Amino acid sequence: MFDDKKIILASRSPRRQMILTEAGIDFIVKPVDVLESYRNNIPIDEVARYIAEKKTKQFPYLREKEIVIAADTTVIVDEVILGKPADYEEAAQMLHLLSGKTHHVTTGVCIKDRHQLVSFSDTTLVEFKELTDKEIDYYITNFEPYDKAGGYGIQEWIGMIGVIRIEGSYFTVMGLPVHKVYQALLNF
Amino acid sequence: MFDDKKIILASRSPRRQMILTEAGIDFIVKPVDVLESYRNNIPIDEVARYIAEKKTKQFPYLREKEIVIAADTTVIVDEVILGKPADYEEAAQMLHLLSGKTHHVTTGVCIKDRHQLVSFSDTTLVEFKELTDKEIDYYITNFEPYDKAGGYGIQEWIGMIGVIRIEGSYFTVMGLPVHKVYQALLNF
Repeated sequence: MFDDKKIILASRSPRRQMILTEAGIDFIVKPVDVLESYRNNIPIDEVARYIAEKKTKQFPYLREKEIVIAADTTVIVDEVILGKPADYEEAAQMLHLLSGKTHHVTTGVCIKDRHQLVSFSDTTLVEFKELTDKEIDYYITNFEPYDKAGGYGIQEWIGMIGVIRIEGSYFTVMGLPVHKVYQALLNF
Repeated sequence: MFDDKKIILASRSPRRQMILTEAGIDFIVKPVDVLESYRNNIPIDEVARYIAEKKTKQFPYLREKEIVIAADTTVIVDEVILGKPADYEEAAQMLHLLSGKTHHVTTGVCIKDRHQLVSFSDTTLVEFKELTDKEIDYYITNFEPYDKAGGYGIQEWIGMIGVIRIEGSYFTVMGLPVHKVYQALLNF
């Protein structure tokens, strides 16, 4: 797929790399480090797209045929973005917040080459069953979800036993709305 | 998980085996071959559960602590069940049927031990974008989905680029509503 392009994935997330690989898209990885900060006046569901755009700004000089893809994923519950949990306590707090409720996962994407830039986002609703203290403890102890926004990975144990329903794209929750990325790449 | 039980998965599906493994459930595999036939008077959305029950009937003599899990997945579009495509033509026909539409995937499950039996099913809506002839041809040629009900695997290329939205459980589409299996096993 897209063999005439040189696609650069600006992310060190193994999930995003896996998704692009499974979608048959060849790419190289060039992770960027940006401060994931944003002004207060950005609507909460635009934050992920804003940060994805910020990440592509680290590539001001692209060569002909080079395309950079950046993404950012936010977990939103009760109008608040949950970041990555710093420790066991924070992870447990987040999972208690998500338990028995529906939350939003929004992944923002920015794709650009020398000539154009597109950015968009995609949102999936995720509903957790009531998680027991034992399940939350088992998950955090065994999976240490400290690199994951919202304190969980949908493809991990807690996602398999705890998520009773999603509405939208599964891959958006994992970190990349691959159906939209594919469709956008057709226009590059 | 469930280490005091001896769980038997009555399925040769590598997807089902992967899902149970990722959910941390230990099991052994004992595939069964049943004729996947059913009487006409069974409601279409009960067929999968009926066939799952039929599969567990192959285990009439279970020992104490043994639990058998069987499942069957049906792809339903326009009130018709799509089976496994026999050849390229049939696979292409099925994908054209699914293109640009929402269909249902129902997975039926039967779990039993010496003392009890539970069966249930779970349904997920899956919406495909309009697939191009080129995309359908690329998929069938490269993935040969002849072992897959409806002619596609959601975790494969066509699922990643073609499915724009699901409503329900992703794993139900893959072949096992693992959240319900886990919850049911807690009562065994």
